[in-house]
Amino acid sequence: MSGHVRRVLLVHDDREYLVEPGEEFGTDLGVLEVPEDVEPGETLETHLGTAFRVRALRGPDLFHHFERTGAPMVPRDVGLVIGETGISVGDRVLDAGTGTGVLAASMARAGASVVTYERDPDFADVARENMALAGVADAVEVRAGDVLESLESLVDEPEFDVLTLDTGDAPSMVEQAPTLLVDGGFLAVYSPFVEDSREVVETAHEVGLTDVRTHETIQREMDFDGRGSRPSTAPVGHTGYLTVARTT
Amino acid sequence: MSGHVRRVLLVHDDREYLVEPGEEFGTDLGVLEVPEDVEPGETLETHLGTAFRVRALRGPDLFHHFERTGAPMVPRDVGLVIGETGISVGDRVLDAGTGTGVLAASMARAGASVVTYERDPDFADVARENMALAGVADAVEVRAGDVLESLESLVDEPEFDVLTLDTGDAPSMVEQAPTLLVDGGFLAVYSPFVEDSREVVETAHEVGLTDVRTHETIQREMDFDGRGSRPSTAPVGHTGYLTVARTT
Amino acid sequence: MSGHVRRVLLVHDDREYLVEPGEEFGTDLGVLEVPEDVEPGETLETHLGTAFRVRALRGPDLFHHFERTGAPMVPRDVGLVIGETGISVGDRVLDAGTGTGVLAASMARAGASVVTYERDPDFADVARENMALAGVADAVEVRAGDVLESLESLVDEPEFDVLTLDTGDAPSMVEQAPTLLVDGGFLAVYSPFVEDSREVVETAHEVGLTDVRTHETIQREMDFDGRGSRPSTAPVGHTGYLTVARTT
Amino acid sequence: MSGHVRRVLLVHDDREYLVEPGEEFGTDLGVLEVPEDVEPGETLETHLGTAFRVRALRGPDLFHHFERTGAPMVPRDVGLVIGETGISVGDRVLDAGTGTGVLAASMARAGASVVTYERDPDFADVARENMALAGVADAVEVRAGDVLESLESLVDEPEFDVLTLDTGDAPSMVEQAPTLLVDGGFLAVYSPFVEDSREVVETAHEVGLTDVRTHETIQREMDFDGRGSRPSTAPVGHTGYLTVARTT
Repeated sequence: MSGHVRRVLLVHDDREYLVEPGEEFGTDLGVLEVPEDVEPGETLETHLGTAFRVRALRGPDLFHHFERTGAPMVPRDVGLVIGETGISVGDRVLDAGTGTGVLAASMARAGASVVTYERDPDFADVARENMALAGVADAVEVRAGDVLESLESLVDEPEFDVLTLDTGDAPSMVEQAPTLLVDGGFLAVYSPFVEDSREVVETAHEVGLTDVRTHETIQREMDFDGRGSRPSTAPVGHTGYLTVARTT
Repeated sequence: MSGHVRRVLLVHDDREYLVEPGEEFGTDLGVLEVPEDVEPGETLETHLGTAFRVRALRGPDLFHHFERTGAPMVPRDVGLVIGETGISVGDRVLDAGTGTGVLAASMARAGASVVTYERDPDFADVARENMALAGVADAVEVRAGDVLESLESLVDEPEFDVLTLDTGDAPSMVEQAPTLLVDGGFLAVYSPFVEDSREVVETAHEVGLTDVRTHETIQREMDFDGRGSRPSTAPVGHTGYLTVARTT
Repeated sequence: MSGHVRRVLLVHDDREYLVEPGEEFGTDLGVLEVPEDVEPGETLETHLGTAFRVRALRGPDLFHHFERTGAPMVPRDVGLVIGETGISVGDRVLDAGTGTGVLAASMARAGASVVTYERDPDFADVARENMALAGVADAVEVRAGDVLESLESLVDEPEFDVLTLDTGDAPSMVEQAPTLLVDGGFLAVYSPFVEDSREVVETAHEVGLTDVRTHETIQREMDFDGRGSRPSTAPVGHTGYLTVARTT
Repeated sequence: MSGHVRRVLLVHDDREYLVEPGEEFGTDLGVLEVPEDVEPGETLETHLGTAFRVRALRGPDLFHHFERTGAPMVPRDVGLVIGETGISVGDRVLDAGTGTGVLAASMARAGASVVTYERDPDFADVARENMALAGVADAVEVRAGDVLESLESLVDEPEFDVLTLDTGDAPSMVEQAPTLLVDGGFLAVYSPFVEDSREVVETAHEVGLTDVRTHETIQREMDFDGRGSRPSTAPVGHTGYLTVARTT
């Protein structure tokens, strides 16, 4: 994974640690050196004799291992953004706001170069550490600041393939989508509320975007037991609406 | 995008063609040569003077431009598989059955190397052409045949990070997941029916997979018009259940 | 059913007619007299020898047999109103606007006395005929006019047990709920749009109603065939939000 | 409400009691006699001076005030049964199994005469008390025993208009639906599991019922606050599938 620093998970019972091959790792269970060529399936032992299984780090692990500065986007919604915009190797993505950074890191893991804006400088610092944890520090540039105030410099950069927004003032950025995106590029806006989604849709139409759609996703788990099969009685709540649109 | 042949879309009114930079392209609207360094946003003209806009090819375009050998997986479900399994650059994925190949191509576009099995040799040929169309022929190996009959050779290959199944006899492959996958690898099984999902879940538990979950996804579009906002009265039907599980 | 004129259905192939015991009934298939003591399960023959099966008229038949002045409320939503408000024998219900009258007729069939307002005098005439068809002309008073302009006389009548609204200006009526309803009475407002539902909820809170809840109902049919069981791929769209509240 | 004993609720703060006009009512807050002509909206005082507001008893109150012998059917599902079968004044309903009795009582309140079977004699006793609480003891006959063992005597009774089932062995009763129901009568079967619903549907087809449909209902509440409108993040789980069919 060029530009990516590989990470693995060390697992002992219900304890999991994200580590970098080559690093020295220590807890109350002892100290060990993670081999540069460590592979999932191996077992490592601390100097106190505690065994850790090595597991591959995968996207859904980010949700659990990132330091949180807010509610991170769930794997389902990360997948919907990636699927609906077709994130792929070589993409240039503009993302705002970063938050915990799960979406930015996941898009980077799928091969995209991501520029992401986080208004709160402390949150931006945390997001940068999270990108390092995910092994995508090289692929994600976390910029502290308001993306709307950076528009002048952004229009001087090459156009982006995808614009992902998870901010309260998304409509102002949607106005800029035709300028910031390549032809056929995708906009994806995540908003918890109907009113915000509506404003995004109206703005998208006003600035000439096409294929404007707002998806609502209801997901349930199925229960299979000795009595039969049914949707879980332990239910799943609303996360957000996803509006997708495209430049012409 | 290393190993990927770049493709772009030529768009004129409601006609869209997927082309390769450098190729000669011709229709009843005339002939043109697609420049090697063509970029989205440019306009190309045929010898008859018809203008084509150049657009970036993105994942959701595959759904419309692939030759179909069955109902292709919709972008939403492609996204859910990618999000729930964390598909990323460098992944090795084993996929069966290929079908139209939208899932295989989309995972390849997100950086994965995919080995995919399609039982019908004619369908496998179509899938190979679709991989070329998507610019991921190098990243996806389409094997004609039954994956279950290839197990002996598969276990000699390096372990896979992810196993994706969209076949009627998925449970038999689920039994092999612990052998075929790295530690911490993901299994994702797509099945339209409750009974099949149930059998997949039971098998997953039997062979010791963890975090076994079957998701059902109901997605609706929102309508925003002058009268107000509401879920669309033009509804969306069931596609399939997605069962996800992980090796330990 | 005191105050109710019994109706039965005459069924021949896919033709169904709602008739009153004692009436003379004639179509191109011939003429017959419906006995006063006709019972479901009997067969009647026209003078031309065509046989009609007699079926009981039930609430869901109203949806198909009423003359429509707009989209009638579906049996599911009729049921939700009845279930959430607990419509029962002896209830006094105030309903606006009548529309086709399926809700008013169904509540009357469950024993309620209904006063219903319909702004369009022609629609009110149709609704009156529909009430006769349903055998509840005595239990439903269809008033042509705007319920808001009739408030002065309404407050002089005994209080109502339930207030059901399916009109664009529902919030103005919600303001009157504490005056018009008995203690512990129910308000039920059906509105297709989010914004209208929101306004209803805000008004309900302002005038001191309790247990204010807006339900959204998504209903799907299941398909059971030789391949397995699954939610129907032929889907069901949004009908409306149902807001329920109670006086204290 | 003929055959019904009127009940009212006495409410003080968050305490609610179901009482019968004319009864003497006592708690630690004092004693009072409930007037025969008590009306909702009045206030009654105990001999200790504690004030109780009088509220009308309505269907949804049964859910909270009945003594439970299992999870009672929620008002939404009660409404769906009533709406889909068109329960009305004068109906004869056969119901099994009674359980807590919310459905039987609600149908009786809508004017039906209900014969309901409960296998557990102690549960049947509780159900009888619940019917008295709801004021419908005259309209609901709770029979202790297995409805399947009572078939011989049931076929000697007049036919029923509606058959409602909430039991594990519903399919065996579905077989009897054509014998027990009038022409055009409705069957409604409530089952939590897919497999049971499937068996009910297959049996319904085998015995010649028509309009066989299994509904799944997903209901969510909407949240309206200062930030906007959205489906509740506190979600609602699956209750059961409702299969409805009709005799020809």
